[in-house]
Amino acid sequence: MATTGRGPYAKTAEVRRKILQACVDAFGDAGFHGSSTKDIAQRAGISHTGLRHHFPTKEDLLIALLELRAEHSSQLLTELNARTPETDPLDALRGQLAILRENRRSPGMIELHTVLSGEATSPDHPAHNYYVKRYQDIRQHYTRAFTTLAERGDLSAPFPPAQLATMTISLINGLQMQWLYDRESVDVEGTVRDFLVSAVPALGR
Amino acid sequence: MATTGRGPYAKTAEVRRKILQACVDAFGDAGFHGSSTKDIAQRAGISHTGLRHHFPTKEDLLIALLELRAEHSSQLLTELNARTPETDPLDALRGQLAILRENRRSPGMIELHTVLSGEATSPDHPAHNYYVKRYQDIRQHYTRAFTTLAERGDLSAPFPPAQLATMTISLINGLQMQWLYDRESVDVEGTVRDFLVSAVPALGR
Repeated sequence: MATTGRGPYAKTAEVRRKILQACVDAFGDAGFHGSSTKDIAQRAGISHTGLRHHFPTKEDLLIALLELRAEHSSQLLTELNARTPETDPLDALRGQLAILRENRRSPGMIELHTVLSGEATSPDHPAHNYYVKRYQDIRQHYTRAFTTLAERGDLSAPFPPAQLATMTISLINGLQMQWLYDRESVDVEGTVRDFLVSAVPALGR
Repeated sequence: MATTGRGPYAKTAEVRRKILQACVDAFGDAGFHGSSTKDIAQRAGISHTGLRHHFPTKEDLLIALLELRAEHSSQLLTELNARTPETDPLDALRGQLAILRENRRSPGMIELHTVLSGEATSPDHPAHNYYVKRYQDIRQHYTRAFTTLAERGDLSAPFPPAQLATMTISLINGLQMQWLYDRESVDVEGTVRDFLVSAVPALGR
């Protein structure tokens, strides 16, 4: 019985899911440095020994979490067919806007990302290299989309594609932080959309 | 002797300055949550008891640091005569650009601000209210400058003043974080200047 279908594998997956959700909450509240594995075990409703069986160290938890997040974004992009900044740059931009709309429903992930990407600016933080690489990848993704749009004559912003890419990413990160401080006044997706439409008028049509 | 001029007061000020510098380094590396007062005392080269004499708790250190930072920015703005977003909005914007140029020389303060403003998005962080208020003030400052420019016909951006204010602040915060990850590729002041000049062409003249 135990080895078929909904046996121990499903149970293990369920426990891991619970632990990672507790981890999103803990890291989003107090950051990686400010969270203890004891606190995470308590939030997940399991013993500290149980937690350490699945994730021996706090670093293991962080890595599993960042992988999960990367997977989630990449799934969304695939669903939206937005992996093609060269062949369909408008769809690529629309895909990013859809992710921002979706993010509104998971403030815990925005908190996690804002707190972690802030503390991981220190070169010795365990997520530092993850974020260096992530931002390089995103910058390249946007640069490719804006370059194609510029070649088609669809870029009306006075900034070169690479600078516009850096601006867009910075705007998104900064707006998400502002939103966490004041959810009434700040509209992340609407503001990014207005900014992108001003640079790429075809996006608004 | 001890009560005149360069006596104990000067010495106390010097010790406090040393402690706060150690604090900038520690918080910038590991955040408020990840730093201990023992680590800060060690970085400052004084005993833990000595540190606690000047700052009884870690919260006292954080508050002193944020006050120092606010004072520093406000001094710079006064020197630049940039406290008048209504009467001279162009000078107010130039003043902000000068602060960004100045910031390049103090990466420790940028790290501190990036890490703290990230972790302080949690409502129970001791710096949370400080940042809520700070961002409201800065947003108001920019909104006043952009409103005056719009009235004068000097605003060419397709965004209302309040939205442009939120964009500018988000862009600055996001760029400073990107810069910490990649100092070669990201030019904070130059990018903000290009963005502002595109919205307010008079700034480039």
